[in-house]
Amino acid sequence: MTYTRRIDLRSDTVTQPDETMRVAMSSAQVGDDVLDHDPTMRRLEEETAARLGMAAALWVPSGTMGNVIAMVVHLRRGDRFLAPRAAHVLEAELGSSAWLAGGMPQPLEWTAGPGRINPEDVRAYASQSSPYYALTTRLLCLENTHNFAGGSVTPPDEHARLVSAAREAGLLVHLDGARLWNASVALGVPPAALTVGVDTVQVCLSKGLGAPVGSLVAGSRSFVTEARRVRKMLGGGVRQGGILAAAGLVALERIDDLALDHANAARLAEGLAELGWEVGKPETNIVIAAVPDTAAALDGLDRVGVLATAVPGGVRFVTHRDAPEADITEALRRISAARSPAPAA
Amino acid sequence: MTYTRRIDLRSDTVTQPDETMRVAMSSAQVGDDVLDHDPTMRRLEEETAARLGMAAALWVPSGTMGNVIAMVVHLRRGDRFLAPRAAHVLEAELGSSAWLAGGMPQPLEWTAGPGRINPEDVRAYASQSSPYYALTTRLLCLENTHNFAGGSVTPPDEHARLVSAAREAGLLVHLDGARLWNASVALGVPPAALTVGVDTVQVCLSKGLGAPVGSLVAGSRSFVTEARRVRKMLGGGVRQGGILAAAGLVALERIDDLALDHANAARLAEGLAELGWEVGKPETNIVIAAVPDTAAALDGLDRVGVLATAVPGGVRFVTHRDAPEADITEALRRISAARSPAPAA
Amino acid sequence: MTYTRRIDLRSDTVTQPDETMRVAMSSAQVGDDVLDHDPTMRRLEEETAARLGMAAALWVPSGTMGNVIAMVVHLRRGDRFLAPRAAHVLEAELGSSAWLAGGMPQPLEWTAGPGRINPEDVRAYASQSSPYYALTTRLLCLENTHNFAGGSVTPPDEHARLVSAAREAGLLVHLDGARLWNASVALGVPPAALTVGVDTVQVCLSKGLGAPVGSLVAGSRSFVTEARRVRKMLGGGVRQGGILAAAGLVALERIDDLALDHANAARLAEGLAELGWEVGKPETNIVIAAVPDTAAALDGLDRVGVLATAVPGGVRFVTHRDAPEADITEALRRISAARSPAPAA
Amino acid sequence: MTYTRRIDLRSDTVTQPDETMRVAMSSAQVGDDVLDHDPTMRRLEEETAARLGMAAALWVPSGTMGNVIAMVVHLRRGDRFLAPRAAHVLEAELGSSAWLAGGMPQPLEWTAGPGRINPEDVRAYASQSSPYYALTTRLLCLENTHNFAGGSVTPPDEHARLVSAAREAGLLVHLDGARLWNASVALGVPPAALTVGVDTVQVCLSKGLGAPVGSLVAGSRSFVTEARRVRKMLGGGVRQGGILAAAGLVALERIDDLALDHANAARLAEGLAELGWEVGKPETNIVIAAVPDTAAALDGLDRVGVLATAVPGGVRFVTHRDAPEADITEALRRISAARSPAPAA
Repeated sequence: MTYTRRIDLRSDTVTQPDETMRVAMSSAQVGDDVLDHDPTMRRLEEETAARLGMAAALWVPSGTMGNVIAMVVHLRRGDRFLAPRAAHVLEAELGSSAWLAGGMPQPLEWTAGPGRINPEDVRAYASQSSPYYALTTRLLCLENTHNFAGGSVTPPDEHARLVSAAREAGLLVHLDGARLWNASVALGVPPAALTVGVDTVQVCLSKGLGAPVGSLVAGSRSFVTEARRVRKMLGGGVRQGGILAAAGLVALERIDDLALDHANAARLAEGLAELGWEVGKPETNIVIAAVPDTAAALDGLDRVGVLATAVPGGVRFVTHRDAPEADITEALRRISAARSPAPAA
Repeated sequence: MTYTRRIDLRSDTVTQPDETMRVAMSSAQVGDDVLDHDPTMRRLEEETAARLGMAAALWVPSGTMGNVIAMVVHLRRGDRFLAPRAAHVLEAELGSSAWLAGGMPQPLEWTAGPGRINPEDVRAYASQSSPYYALTTRLLCLENTHNFAGGSVTPPDEHARLVSAAREAGLLVHLDGARLWNASVALGVPPAALTVGVDTVQVCLSKGLGAPVGSLVAGSRSFVTEARRVRKMLGGGVRQGGILAAAGLVALERIDDLALDHANAARLAEGLAELGWEVGKPETNIVIAAVPDTAAALDGLDRVGVLATAVPGGVRFVTHRDAPEADITEALRRISAARSPAPAA
Repeated sequence: MTYTRRIDLRSDTVTQPDETMRVAMSSAQVGDDVLDHDPTMRRLEEETAARLGMAAALWVPSGTMGNVIAMVVHLRRGDRFLAPRAAHVLEAELGSSAWLAGGMPQPLEWTAGPGRINPEDVRAYASQSSPYYALTTRLLCLENTHNFAGGSVTPPDEHARLVSAAREAGLLVHLDGARLWNASVALGVPPAALTVGVDTVQVCLSKGLGAPVGSLVAGSRSFVTEARRVRKMLGGGVRQGGILAAAGLVALERIDDLALDHANAARLAEGLAELGWEVGKPETNIVIAAVPDTAAALDGLDRVGVLATAVPGGVRFVTHRDAPEADITEALRRISAARSPAPAA
Repeated sequence: MTYTRRIDLRSDTVTQPDETMRVAMSSAQVGDDVLDHDPTMRRLEEETAARLGMAAALWVPSGTMGNVIAMVVHLRRGDRFLAPRAAHVLEAELGSSAWLAGGMPQPLEWTAGPGRINPEDVRAYASQSSPYYALTTRLLCLENTHNFAGGSVTPPDEHARLVSAAREAGLLVHLDGARLWNASVALGVPPAALTVGVDTVQVCLSKGLGAPVGSLVAGSRSFVTEARRVRKMLGGGVRQGGILAAAGLVALERIDDLALDHANAARLAEGLAELGWEVGKPETNIVIAAVPDTAAALDGLDRVGVLATAVPGGVRFVTHRDAPEADITEALRRISAARSPAPAA
């Protein structure tokens, strides 16, 4: 049997702006953000900074640009930065940290849980710099939630211990918070509780929150001044960006809605487990199932109109506002109806 | 006397999306352009490529990104590129060509008219490479219209001679066509007549055409494939960009409207000349007046609510769709009423 | 008791040119290597290429420059390269691979022995590139002998399997052969047996072979042409380098002498083991002893005039031509006489 | 008639170390300059710094590396630097300033004499930075003597005015002093009189002074600390460099000998002028003759065994210690005997 409607669980980046957001965009007050700052952009930057507990923020077209601007500002050429294994900055930004910032990545193992690292490892790698080897470790780059670890959450106390370890070792800290909102909702704490002590943080509006285009990178005022210069060099300075910022402001009001995505992820994981899939309990909106043959599994899913993506050793499903509970139920129904045995069986 | 309404002639980048454009944005069909290409984005890319007579095109958030991606793809580290003196890539992109592409700029004098260069100079600089000096000249970067030369136009035959000289000397050619549409309208030739023989061309939608955010860089299919990779590294890959592309498609329908801007620029220049300003006849929508004291001149204009910008040795006014004929008349009235003598007097 | 004469086992880089080498240098025929190639340099380059079984070679001032030139030529910006954990290119070149080549390092675990990796891991990481993540793995960087693994040797058959795995996966291969001569002597095979299938190899003359200043990077003729350009940009093009090349030619005649260093390393390791140190059997001229407190151990050694260096978790001794058997005996005598308990006790 | 002995006037870089220098090299005390500083290297660095009136100096393998290290330390990515037209950093270093330092070069016209610029131009370009264009001018790069301007000299008072203009405008100053010794001798002032107020200066030992390999870059102590790190990343850190430093120390004793080269250059220019060549009076050791056809002129010279090089619009002869007065006389005799008319006739 063929399904004409596809249930797209590849990523929460597939979410589309809804009517409210489109109306906001179409009525946005805008200006030339290069010449004299777009007013809606400014509001979005101020509001985001406030929510994150940071002094200032700068809009950027993508999370990748936000992350790489932070690295360009923080790192001297050749400096080492630490990040949890399989962090987005390590795997999914095409090496821009090396090319643009000259950064030498050092992955840290997940010794504290999926996607989560230990203060001891931060200390150990921070202290490896020596006059002889002389590679200088300069930056700890955290990721909360950790995407490729299945949307795993680092709670505030653990975050604080990592930041403390970094600061004591003289490291700067950048937080890739592309899905920081999910961590905040899952933990029931405000986003600012998860940015304590960081020098910079990047957050996305175009993932679970559904805005089209746009992330922000926040830090001190002097950071943002320098970041603005780097943004222009990278080609990220735009005109009349208020159109997008207007959608971003709507997105910021919807953070609590992410709880629905988390509930749907839980539902999906349970359903898959019942069907015999090898799948853990999701912490946020990402479900990773271990499969012996990723390509075959994706193919089987595709045949029943369920879209997912490959991750090393498995298949990743991401729940989001454009795939409501009914879609999850339907996806499970289709997978079950396909009568194909669970891929791990 | 004070004027509450300001007439903003600083740049055509101050133009704002109008109702039609906003409706188009709010009803745009969109997708995840990183995962599987946004459908509206694709239409915009195809339509732009067609108009430019190029094989393919790629959306980028800014003209700066379009130009620098072309340089990154075309240049080996350390290669020299030629450009007319005061080209945008030389003066107004914060050195991104050097940092990102490792390019060594060589400005060429305006020996063929304002902003316009000679094939002989292209040949002369191209041939300076030698085993001993070994700096390799690799690229000619043209700009049509030439912004800081006052929106000056290079006609098709002159363009063709420059491109021929470059190709015979083994150079690649990139065209910064941020305002190529203006050149096309001023000359009464299709845009594709002005891209003959170039390897790549960048065009903007957010200047006189009034779209918020967005440029395209066009070239061969293999160029666009590589450009897409570089765009992602620079952080220019976006989601649901169809929102912006929808405005871009509207913009493409409005190219002929630029004739109004040109007429207004002519009116403004005539009016200023009658008031004793030292001002040439504009070729498109940019009017440059030579003034002895730029800061004082801008200040005087600001006092009557007319906004312009400084260029070396003068003041620049740019006409655009959000400053219709009545605004130009009013601006001239205010300047006249201020009874201040012309700045050059 | 104090020792006025220090026994320097920090590195084989402390070796000094002897009389023969100094005479060779002082009588070398030289030329301007930038203008028209220094004749002695050319001989050194040709002879080295021949010994390595490569088409051509280029002199460079240091192994670091040789390695980074190879990476600059091989990698596109942002490409991933694989290397055994703690490889010199990862730890001891100050991140030049990231800054200069834009390379993203991926350490591979030592699953085949100290400093030695498995073809399966090469395959696994090579295949992780995907349209979605899109980080491209481009290069396998081997190191033979592996310095920080204690001068460990990769034998020809294992080398061949790694190179095959890389080539089948579409990877280029660079060999950091700073101490390739030691591997060759330890295995009793010619150096060319250890470069089979590589695209480029770097070898040093200033380590155990005792020449002052100088390494070579070898590859195809077209590689060397491009490498020469990159060398000049990095500032590695020199005049009258024949002075140094003359020492290098002497060095090449001395490869077999490295067997003495290896015998001395074995002696040192046995002696230390008898004194209760936790030390493995050295494969070449590097002895690594595990100690609980590296600083304290180095301090204790320093007090008896024996110089070593810190490596993670231990102390490294390197034997070389300027520390003959008698020095090793004396070093052991001093350590024993200090009556300090073995550091691991 | 054929001449078996060639008189090589292509560059003073063709000079070869003489007996004294070779003896010094062969008896040099050396060490591992990466591990603990080579003693002869240290002496050379201290002595050079003293002569230049700078706090500290660092040996580098080439003038290109010295210049680019200064730029890497001084410039932020994308910053503009000013240099006299046809400066070595602009034309003869393969664009390393752009690639490595991200610097945007701005050539200044020779309005104060050959190779010499005006403080007014420094001020004018320094002040062009603006919030709108925002390209920041950060560095003035001087060259004394100016190679491609024919070894032209900038005297101390003119130097001081340029440096003052730069400092008042907030610019840093680097001096490419590859042939600073020649300027010093020609003016009869100590080298330190020509470095007043600069932040950094690079000097070469391998040009007229005859040492093989080696330049130094001098500045503050903190500059040298950072320069050492950059040098290692570029691959310029060497072992036992004392061999080369010993030659350098001999070279420093020979600065006054450069007067002979200057006298020979004067003789050559006079002789060529008598033969009808269009040639100016040389200021130091470089003679540039304007010729209508450079290739033909070089060819004609080559046929009589006189080697020179091409410069834009002319032929360059460089006198040096390995081409004594008799060689100059002989070169003129051969050119005259060839009875070919002067190339400009």
